[in-house]
Amino acid sequence: MGLVIFEYYEMKVTILGNNSATPAFGRHPTAQTVAVNGEVLLIDCGEGTQIQMQRYAAKWRKLHHIFISHMHGDHYFGLPGLINSMSLGGRTDALHLYGPAPLMPIIEAILAVADTVLSYPLIFHPLPEGSEVLVETHLFRVTCFPVIHRIACHGFLVEASTRGRKLLPARCEEYGVPVSFYDELKNGEDYSRPDGTVVKNYLLTEPGPSPKRYAYCADTLYTETILPYVKGVDTMYHEATYLEADADKAVARYHTTARQAAQLAALAGVKQLLLGHFSSKYKDVDSFMEEASPVFANVVVTVEGNVYEI
Amino acid sequence: MGLVIFEYYEMKVTILGNNSATPAFGRHPTAQTVAVNGEVLLIDCGEGTQIQMQRYAAKWRKLHHIFISHMHGDHYFGLPGLINSMSLGGRTDALHLYGPAPLMPIIEAILAVADTVLSYPLIFHPLPEGSEVLVETHLFRVTCFPVIHRIACHGFLVEASTRGRKLLPARCEEYGVPVSFYDELKNGEDYSRPDGTVVKNYLLTEPGPSPKRYAYCADTLYTETILPYVKGVDTMYHEATYLEADADKAVARYHTTARQAAQLAALAGVKQLLLGHFSSKYKDVDSFMEEASPVFANVVVTVEGNVYEI
Repeated sequence: MGLVIFEYYEMKVTILGNNSATPAFGRHPTAQTVAVNGEVLLIDCGEGTQIQMQRYAAKWRKLHHIFISHMHGDHYFGLPGLINSMSLGGRTDALHLYGPAPLMPIIEAILAVADTVLSYPLIFHPLPEGSEVLVETHLFRVTCFPVIHRIACHGFLVEASTRGRKLLPARCEEYGVPVSFYDELKNGEDYSRPDGTVVKNYLLTEPGPSPKRYAYCADTLYTETILPYVKGVDTMYHEATYLEADADKAVARYHTTARQAAQLAALAGVKQLLLGHFSSKYKDVDSFMEEASPVFANVVVTVEGNVYEI
Repeated sequence: MGLVIFEYYEMKVTILGNNSATPAFGRHPTAQTVAVNGEVLLIDCGEGTQIQMQRYAAKWRKLHHIFISHMHGDHYFGLPGLINSMSLGGRTDALHLYGPAPLMPIIEAILAVADTVLSYPLIFHPLPEGSEVLVETHLFRVTCFPVIHRIACHGFLVEASTRGRKLLPARCEEYGVPVSFYDELKNGEDYSRPDGTVVKNYLLTEPGPSPKRYAYCADTLYTETILPYVKGVDTMYHEATYLEADADKAVARYHTTARQAAQLAALAGVKQLLLGHFSSKYKDVDSFMEEASPVFANVVVTVEGNVYEI
């Protein structure tokens, strides 16, 4: 049976911008898309995000949820343009925006002075102070969690919805279960055969793989308070604005070094660590790998435009 | 005498973005710098302007005046990022911002929610309803003039300050005028020789060339009401959002076609016409040249990154 049962259950991250504060050396301010089960989530939206989305072929029509971590401009100055452009493009699908409470009055002021009426509903969800499930659908769940920055800031935990039980194709054939019933099997249902006998679900399936989990840790001082949220995730994206040589700058500006990020990944027992949010003082970011990899082996220094499988 | 007397008196425009509304086909939203006598003026500041300025090596330290034509996002969404980045870069020089009155409260709100205190004075000058001289220095003068758009919108006339009188080097040598007195000669002063005799200025100089003038016409419906402001300028930048085939769209959206822009250039008797603000519906903009050039010969379809001598 060449049938690929779970092809729809994927998660991958595309880095649209991985520089801190100001753009430099071709690196853009923070933005990334998370493709999860066919839906595209946008996390942060620095200046130029809509242009980066065009460059890397991110589909607006699959985008219904945008998450903004905090109100530093390098994380949201691309949002007004993206919101406008989707309206000029005739979007009708609702767009859900999750961000700090002060975000929406600014967007509303920008729309008002231009006499702009959007072509679609823009639904704002202010972030709470602490951790909370922001949205849960049949495809994914996103939870915010507080990090420690100069102003209020949140990370986001993206979890694919359960993949359901895993089919045992040989058994399904043996018991004569039609392919049309496979979705019900994945949901744990028993199969009633035409002759009235019932085949219990556990004979036809086994427990499915754990749903993929991705943690985006935003801008933050090194803090172990986030461990409960990121523990054991498949992939953690953590900022590494500085190298250890500039650890004092990292503390002063509520940022993290590459080695600290690696240490947190080790403590959290994550499977993969993605580094980003590099300071404009570094033209070359190879040293981030040299510094982090002795502490946590499976580390990636992200590159804009690259797609990382979770 | 190989001396180049007036090398400082130059004017040139660098196009940072020439697309309308949304970025497309590698074209960015509106922004351009005007270098005049060593100073750099920024006119409009669409999303991504600071990145474009890096790409095309525009110097922040020569930038002290920014002009925003109107409150459509494609003309100012790059401004908050640019303002922030100059502060992060430690700028101390004052920055003068000229734009519609509603611009500054938005900038202030954006700075306030980020707890940002700029490293330099940002001085806002709201645009008047009509035409007015906005700034005049020993290097240049900028005047705004109203155009006709869906919301309040202004064009800008940039005039280099007088070049002074033009030296006649052979005469200067003949009368024994030292090079150290050349600046005074350009300002019209007579030369007093060591023996007490006076050489009248008109013997040593002739009238200098007219100061260069550049008109940026922003987003506008075709309108001859701007003729008094743009008449006879060396270069006029006029929007050409559409081709004549879409003249109905141009009217509906308060924009201009390539042929209309050429017609205005002919009526105004300008020396050169630059076209820009192309709609995202056109991948290829060669047709703008075909449409405009039969009506006005010295027309240029602008290309981002190109520098145009005025």
